Amino acid sequence: MLAAHYAGNRTMTVGEAEPAPPGPGQVQIAVAYNGICGTDLHILSGHMDARVDVPAIIGHEMSGTVAALGEGVEGWAVGDPVTVMPLAWDGTCPACLAGNRHICQNLDFVGIDSPGALQGRWNVDANLLVRLPGTLSLQHAALVEPTAVAVHDVRRAELAPGDKAVVIGGGPIGVLIAAVARSFGAEVVVIELDDKRRERIADLGFTVLDPRDDTAVEKSTVAYVEEWTEGAGADVVFEVSGAAAAVLGAVDYAKVRGTLVVVAIHPEPRPVNLQRVFWRELRLLGARVYQREDFEKAIELLDAGDIPADALITATVPLSEIQSAFDALTAGEAMKILIDVQAGQENA
Amino acid sequence: MLAAHYAGNRTMTVGEAEPAPPGPGQVQIAVAYNGICGTDLHILSGHMDARVDVPAIIGHEMSGTVAALGEGVEGWAVGDPVTVMPLAWDGTCPACLAGNRHICQNLDFVGIDSPGALQGRWNVDANLLVRLPGTLSLQHAALVEPTAVAVHDVRRAELAPGDKAVVIGGGPIGVLIAAVARSFGAEVVVIELDDKRRERIADLGFTVLDPRDDTAVEKSTVAYVEEWTEGAGADVVFEVSGAAAAVLGAVDYAKVRGTLVVVAIHPEPRPVNLQRVFWRELRLLGARVYQREDFEKAIELLDAGDIPADALITATVPLSEIQSAFDALTAGEAMKILIDVQAGQENA
Repeated sequence: MLAAHYAGNRTMTVGEAEPAPPGPGQVQIAVAYNGICGTDLHILSGHMDARVDVPAIIGHEMSGTVAALGEGVEGWAVGDPVTVMPLAWDGTCPACLAGNRHICQNLDFVGIDSPGALQGRWNVDANLLVRLPGTLSLQHAALVEPTAVAVHDVRRAELAPGDKAVVIGGGPIGVLIAAVARSFGAEVVVIELDDKRRERIADLGFTVLDPRDDTAVEKSTVAYVEEWTEGAGADVVFEVSGAAAAVLGAVDYAKVRGTLVVVAIHPEPRPVNLQRVFWRELRLLGARVYQREDFEKAIELLDAGDIPADALITATVPLSEIQSAFDALTAGEAMKILIDVQAGQENA
Repeated sequence: MLAAHYAGNRTMTVGEAEPAPPGPGQVQIAVAYNGICGTDLHILSGHMDARVDVPAIIGHEMSGTVAALGEGVEGWAVGDPVTVMPLAWDGTCPACLAGNRHICQNLDFVGIDSPGALQGRWNVDANLLVRLPGTLSLQHAALVEPTAVAVHDVRRAELAPGDKAVVIGGGPIGVLIAAVARSFGAEVVVIELDDKRRERIADLGFTVLDPRDDTAVEKSTVAYVEEWTEGAGADVVFEVSGAAAAVLGAVDYAKVRGTLVVVAIHPEPRPVNLQRVFWRELRLLGARVYQREDFEKAIELLDAGDIPADALITATVPLSEIQSAFDALTAGEAMKILIDVQAGQENA
């Protein structure tokens, strides 16, 4: 089979490898599509070399079909369409015992801490599988994992029908959060710097504001939200941009007792306006990965057409073009690129 | 009557003034004791001159008795012991309409935005009065307002019996939070820089750690909390110090899905470790003033002896010594100083 490896030095390599049979309790998956995630770009950049053993098969946003069953696996059949919730918890740490297994204190994130989906045949523990409906295409199903991130963020915010939400940052996760929030009955405004992204987001039916050039709305984004919410402020603000300035300004959109969800990863401490947090009794929440119900909800939303999957998938390319796909995403030239993992495989 | 005024230029003056009769709906209070609060020190420092009209009668931590009733006031009698919840909301802003009147978007904080309790006779709207039990001394009752702040912080954190809480900063509010948290059934560790304060807090039966000198516990405060909580981290962390370093480090004490309550006022944006907030799905909450149930709970706790009132009250001095009381507090030489507002009054 063909497999892609992160080889260090900003390089992805593709080569032949011998597929292993599934071990006891494992399922072998014929990987169909694998989306490239922001975390994968971080790995390529070398920022996560302390965590990732080189060479590493990465990839965790995937879809596929069951190819073989290991010893003792029940409830699955060859050919079943599946995705994987790539979290392996220890079940014994204080977080697990308190019911927060998804953020286990010793979490193994499959595709980062252990081998991922960028290979023709992938063996995973059967309990990580999530069943896909036959009505959902495997291309769209490769978006289940990032959509589950968005569902988790929206559920963590306790967003309710009729709420007004501001999403700062209109990349793939920002757009997914906006779409999920809309499907939950919220009204959504997206704030995005990039002109092309703003156009695409507007095409999806969202109000989208440029935080720098206020002429489009003839007022500042804060004034816009103030007026939109009749002086109250937004119920929920999602910080998805990763920018320090966005963190500093995010609290200005929120209503009294409003919620700010920190979705983006901020490797360095960021100045936060705690005076505003105090004055309005705001709630700032961290949100990380997902729980199984988030995966199930994500599948339901994708299957119902509530997620703009085709608009998000900029391109689908074979495994042999993985380096250029990573480079295009790093350069900000695409939203989501899927790798067709079967293309070029001998047994495809 | 005698009244104290903030006269600008770091100065409190005391002078004669003519008491006004209570207006319709108002009650005239013979003020007994008034505690000096951190906010009063901020006013004296000049930092709040944009908000406070000079000369201003300030003061909002008080106890007294009803001296006269204005037109239309029912349910109160001359001599009734009372305190005042010094919040006047407009009842019409989005925050009020959503049930958050205590942080009304146009809140009048009585004693800052309108005249306060540092005068022999004080007229306030009858609906701000809170009844005191005859069993509670008027000196201890002057601590109802800051105790209500602590009750509000603890309730906002949803602290539960058996929880483990870390209080960063052992000033008056920090000690009150520790005492209230203990009364709610939590185990509490206080972190405090000042040697004398640490001694006093230890005398109250709390575990108290020095964040600089780790020899007392032979490990860092983070390692101490890690061990104390059997590897989980604290359920709740209260940031009461106001220090930037404390904000940065506070998240390291918290368990997965733990809560950090920002109690101290941070006029400047503070670096926050959002990576940790994300990684552990922490919850950071602003908490401001109090609601009526916080006042009622504070009275109950003080009346039951659950609050170390005598240990907190460093001194009680007459109105004529107010400047030196402010100066001693500004210099950090005292925890809480009460002003005996009746001492020296002609009609005392």
